[in-house]
Amino acid sequence: MKIRDESDLIDHIIKKTQISSNDVIKSIGDDCAVVKSSNKYLLMTTDTSLEGPHFTSDYTSEEVGYKALATNLSDIAAMGGVPKFILMSITLPKLDSSWIKGFYKGLNILMKKYNLSLIGGDTNKGKLSITIQVIGECKKNIMYRHDAKMNDDIYISGKIGLARTALMIKKMKNTNYLKYFKKYLHRPVPRIELGLELSKIANACIDLSDGLSKDLGLICKSSKVGANIDLDKLPTLKRVYNIIPKKRIYEVIIGGGEDYELCFTINKRYRKKIKEISDKFKIPLTRVGSITSGNINYYSKNKLIKLNITGFDHFNK
Amino acid sequence: MKIRDESDLIDHIIKKTQISSNDVIKSIGDDCAVVKSSNKYLLMTTDTSLEGPHFTSDYTSEEVGYKALATNLSDIAAMGGVPKFILMSITLPKLDSSWIKGFYKGLNILMKKYNLSLIGGDTNKGKLSITIQVIGECKKNIMYRHDAKMNDDIYISGKIGLARTALMIKKMKNTNYLKYFKKYLHRPVPRIELGLELSKIANACIDLSDGLSKDLGLICKSSKVGANIDLDKLPTLKRVYNIIPKKRIYEVIIGGGEDYELCFTINKRYRKKIKEISDKFKIPLTRVGSITSGNINYYSKNKLIKLNITGFDHFNK
Repeated sequence: MKIRDESDLIDHIIKKTQISSNDVIKSIGDDCAVVKSSNKYLLMTTDTSLEGPHFTSDYTSEEVGYKALATNLSDIAAMGGVPKFILMSITLPKLDSSWIKGFYKGLNILMKKYNLSLIGGDTNKGKLSITIQVIGECKKNIMYRHDAKMNDDIYISGKIGLARTALMIKKMKNTNYLKYFKKYLHRPVPRIELGLELSKIANACIDLSDGLSKDLGLICKSSKVGANIDLDKLPTLKRVYNIIPKKRIYEVIIGGGEDYELCFTINKRYRKKIKEISDKFKIPLTRVGSITSGNINYYSKNKLIKLNITGFDHFNK
Repeated sequence: MKIRDESDLIDHIIKKTQISSNDVIKSIGDDCAVVKSSNKYLLMTTDTSLEGPHFTSDYTSEEVGYKALATNLSDIAAMGGVPKFILMSITLPKLDSSWIKGFYKGLNILMKKYNLSLIGGDTNKGKLSITIQVIGECKKNIMYRHDAKMNDDIYISGKIGLARTALMIKKMKNTNYLKYFKKYLHRPVPRIELGLELSKIANACIDLSDGLSKDLGLICKSSKVGANIDLDKLPTLKRVYNIIPKKRIYEVIIGGGEDYELCFTINKRYRKKIKEISDKFKIPLTRVGSITSGNINYYSKNKLIKLNITGFDHFNK
């Protein structure tokens, strides 16, 4: 079989490397791997940050360090875990003291916030590449992608499409709005506290790293369900409509990743509780649709809208 | 402070990222991090493999996959642990099906041997880079670098200088010996079973990834001891003397890394036991010196030999 895209690659990896073990509760195929360890569960995740797909030359080194860790922590948040330790393998083109100090300063913002220890790693010389592994913990209440239930409400935290809007502003060389939107792309906020609270009541959850279209697709595929999404309810900022041409608006809101907000499904009976959690954490939690037995369908004003938006694929851009 | 070499970089990382935690038994500064988890200890290690420092274009993709995992497993062996799970972040320049299949075939040789599960990872497009994280377990009996005791015997497993000899043969374009020596460089054997057995009786241990000079130096620095080494006892192959010019012989045997043999220190009373272990595993275990209170001194025929051999530094080659 020929390996043509990222999905083929992952299928090949899964086929060749899966050995059953009683301790492994969840292997490849969710935001984190889950391993049983005595009376608790360990969550493990890893992500690489590269110049190009993950950051560009206009990022400060502090932003590179911050974001490399934030995107990993977001995977822990999506499972409802608490991050504990990190390991980092960093490849640097040269020893630029000022760059390195900025990088660790950025990393430290999140390490201090979550009281994380960097317990191991590796340093190499080469093209800039940062691979971080985060080890987290869960007592029980783990939010898997495969746990969406029929008729669940679908919610999104915060606002989406903002990181993609920042990217498009950069391409348009439209500096008016750049200052405002850049923070969403360069300094995403991992929803750790929110994920932990949601894990007590929500069913399935994923972080929106590759865009709602692809990421909700992963929940639906894993849970063997479909979804109806009301396009008019998708939470974004009004300014996005001022900046993005109308014909590309859904590409930005549904196809645009890197917001690192949470998309979760939950029984309808928790609507009041969700309102309370939103108030407590001061994070909008917007109900955007519900889980069905069909495919993923998008609606606007009760009319079915055909969208052809695929998510991000590293090998076919 | 200016960051001038790999050691400065690691010092900066340690200074900026260490937060104390009761669960962290050993952080940066050993072959693996050690974290307490209920009634056992988790070992965690990560290493990146890059074209250039870790493999070259004459490696088959099977050898790249094999070696990327072998070098990580060697860190688990050096602590006396059992590897359990791996995560892998791989960056590929393109989706070359044949290369990818070879790579996972190589990885699988060791995964099957040690019944390892690949439980998570990340895939990206870019310059070839493989970062593997191994999570292992230990009951107790962990071999740290900092546990060498005065008057301990110092042993080395297997033969050393062979991987460096292979590298030098490649540079000399001497194809006569290449076939014989290549396996030591391309397919190092992680000493998992040996490490586990030694952990019951040995004090300190390290894997010889950067060469005896640098790696024994790390044991001595961590344990605040010195060492006397008898150069005439260092275990290598006779052929090495036929290939390597006499004046470079110690650079190869003491300065040459990538053998992934174990160097360990142990109380003299275990000499008979070490002989038994060597016979049981059919691996030479050679006593090469002893731990002292001074510096690291090399002797030949009872005469002190001054050697100026530094180990491998990724940023100052």
